[in-house]
Amino acid sequence: MKSSRRRFLQDGAILTGLVAGTVRSASGQTPGPGPENPAHRSAGFVSAMGERSRFEASARIWSDSSTGRVTSSRTPLQDSKGIITPSMLHFERHHARVPEIDPRRHRLLIHGLVDRPLIFTVAELERLPSISRIYFLECSGNSRNPRRGNAETAQQTHGMTSCSEWTGVPLSLLLQEAGVQREASWLVAEGADAAKMTRSIPLTKAMDDILVAYGQNGGALRPEQGYPLRLLIPGWEGNISIKWLRQIQVVDQPYMTREETSRYTDLLPDGRARQFTFEMDPKSVITFPSGGGNLPGPGFYEITGLAWSGRGAIRRVEVSTDGGANWQDAQLQEPVLRFAHTRFRFAWKWDGGEAVVQSRCIDEQGGFQPTVDELIRVRGTNYNYHHNHIQAWKINRDGSVRNALV
Amino acid sequence: MKSSRRRFLQDGAILTGLVAGTVRSASGQTPGPGPENPAHRSAGFVSAMGERSRFEASARIWSDSSTGRVTSSRTPLQDSKGIITPSMLHFERHHARVPEIDPRRHRLLIHGLVDRPLIFTVAELERLPSISRIYFLECSGNSRNPRRGNAETAQQTHGMTSCSEWTGVPLSLLLQEAGVQREASWLVAEGADAAKMTRSIPLTKAMDDILVAYGQNGGALRPEQGYPLRLLIPGWEGNISIKWLRQIQVVDQPYMTREETSRYTDLLPDGRARQFTFEMDPKSVITFPSGGGNLPGPGFYEITGLAWSGRGAIRRVEVSTDGGANWQDAQLQEPVLRFAHTRFRFAWKWDGGEAVVQSRCIDEQGGFQPTVDELIRVRGTNYNYHHNHIQAWKINRDGSVRNALV
Repeated sequence: MKSSRRRFLQDGAILTGLVAGTVRSASGQTPGPGPENPAHRSAGFVSAMGERSRFEASARIWSDSSTGRVTSSRTPLQDSKGIITPSMLHFERHHARVPEIDPRRHRLLIHGLVDRPLIFTVAELERLPSISRIYFLECSGNSRNPRRGNAETAQQTHGMTSCSEWTGVPLSLLLQEAGVQREASWLVAEGADAAKMTRSIPLTKAMDDILVAYGQNGGALRPEQGYPLRLLIPGWEGNISIKWLRQIQVVDQPYMTREETSRYTDLLPDGRARQFTFEMDPKSVITFPSGGGNLPGPGFYEITGLAWSGRGAIRRVEVSTDGGANWQDAQLQEPVLRFAHTRFRFAWKWDGGEAVVQSRCIDEQGGFQPTVDELIRVRGTNYNYHHNHIQAWKINRDGSVRNALV
Repeated sequence: MKSSRRRFLQDGAILTGLVAGTVRSASGQTPGPGPENPAHRSAGFVSAMGERSRFEASARIWSDSSTGRVTSSRTPLQDSKGIITPSMLHFERHHARVPEIDPRRHRLLIHGLVDRPLIFTVAELERLPSISRIYFLECSGNSRNPRRGNAETAQQTHGMTSCSEWTGVPLSLLLQEAGVQREASWLVAEGADAAKMTRSIPLTKAMDDILVAYGQNGGALRPEQGYPLRLLIPGWEGNISIKWLRQIQVVDQPYMTREETSRYTDLLPDGRARQFTFEMDPKSVITFPSGGGNLPGPGFYEITGLAWSGRGAIRRVEVSTDGGANWQDAQLQEPVLRFAHTRFRFAWKWDGGEAVVQSRCIDEQGGFQPTVDELIRVRGTNYNYHHNHIQAWKINRDGSVRNALV
């Protein structure tokens, strides 16, 4: 990355951009103690808990709800920096609101086809061997209906994904402790929300990398993300990472719960439906510039965005600034982590004309993003989940940016 | 790490621990909708910004101040999980409180021995090529006076270090843009706080890895950490990462500012003082169990803590549970990042007797932690900064944990 930046500097592109539009030469002026220096106007003492500046307005927005019930909110990706999502801005999706749970009274039961049914308090789980990993979560309904509705911003199109450092106990350890019996092949996990959110999970994934998580970004889980306990199933659609986790039953078949029959199945053009489509497909989105934004004038801009895949690490992100005619490699922020958001960056000089910018990624298994047309041709328009088409943003001559797909 | 955990399970140590004290067998009981299931009692809707659970009380505490002015606060390391510090709990150290700065009016001036003095708005900086890195910050006064005072907890002894994902523009890029002149060798950086916090910085470090940061853990910098702009100087003592950054002057020598003459120098036994002791030495601290905590009874516990070094990556952390007679390798959370906190973990079965637990780390340059006695023998007791001795915690028979060094 460093060598690439140096090459870029040698090309003179930044210098040109800066002089042309980004930065004024200082010509010896010094910021004085006048209106440019507000330091003495107001100053705070130390505090038990910090709050963000009152000048920051980044916030979650509600998702549209066809039934009139607001059950989800979206992360302001257009304001994102790096790969961590601030915990206060992690997207939400609840089926029956956010329960308020006293961690001292909460229990996790592991039972079913096991030799020793076990029940854990949160404090007991926190004593056990733990791991921390940076993983994304994404609602399987994220970025659906690319050509319908009023999705104008990256938050509206792609805001149901977030990325955090999660800490917890490997579920495999708890299952080994309970003694999984020979005929077991699935789990049924249940949340303590009023919906009793319940999903069937293959035992093989549980023995691989599922966490029973209690930590998020260095603190406890946030209530909207399952406090005090949740499953964290790397790379899989968010709803299966059961929040407010209260029980895991070891079973010998999937249980065909409401959330894997009436919901979270994928209707095909021929009327059949795909079921248990767990993995999130490779996806990327440019977060700057993106819909609803505005470029103040021609010159240098760093195009940046996020890429992720439920099948492992991102290998490559390409960016086009000419509507898809030409594609060039973006720089990936290192370390590139499996099942995590990957920040990509691409140096660009805007000439002030109309432009369409878009990104596409390739993951470690060679998976890639189709165009909207390709996606709809294969899946039809009844398919509500797992849309991973290429998102394009149109930049107009006045600098305004809008969703090029609607 | 995975293979190590499996070996550990095969040893039966966890099973023994669980049965002996950690976990009750469930015996078929199921958590019902009674008092154990609080889900239906209270439930929240989606929100623009999430808040932590009302059951969480982790908070910063004030540092003692011999002058009666409270100018710093400490991160609750005993509650830490993974390597990210929640932004609301990042330690604070201000010399003249926290200024409230409107980012639209703030400017960064780069001048002095440059061909083109430049002045940047925050928005202009955010358009430039950026990078994100996970780095620790640490006050050089952290963990001083190991045998004096009333430091009982990990927060009190070591809480002036925190770790975040920082996003910003490489300072080298801005300096290249300004055109550093041949005779330049140092910078003088100045903050917009009422103290005009000012430090001299070698140009070589600036051209290597210093950031002009505007992002912290995916959001904007927090006010206490320098909103809207700060320097982030990887591995060096925190005070030189100038917060509320307003000007950088390129110069030909260090400027011997107040903060590098009357403060932040290291007084030796012979009356001379070390100056410009930039790099933080390798250090580690066990965060669980740690002073002020309490173990509920004999059995399995995961000992965990943090290690870091201003000289690069942590290579190894060793843990002793017998007062230093024997040391064994701890597991390091991967990826191990340079200039970042590294989480370490060590499986332990407490037999209920008195025990002293402690950790020591080795960094990529072979640097290590001395004992308190070794440190004082070399440096004397006037030395106020850069203490990196081994911290020990005593576990009493009743499970109470206290600082073994005081």
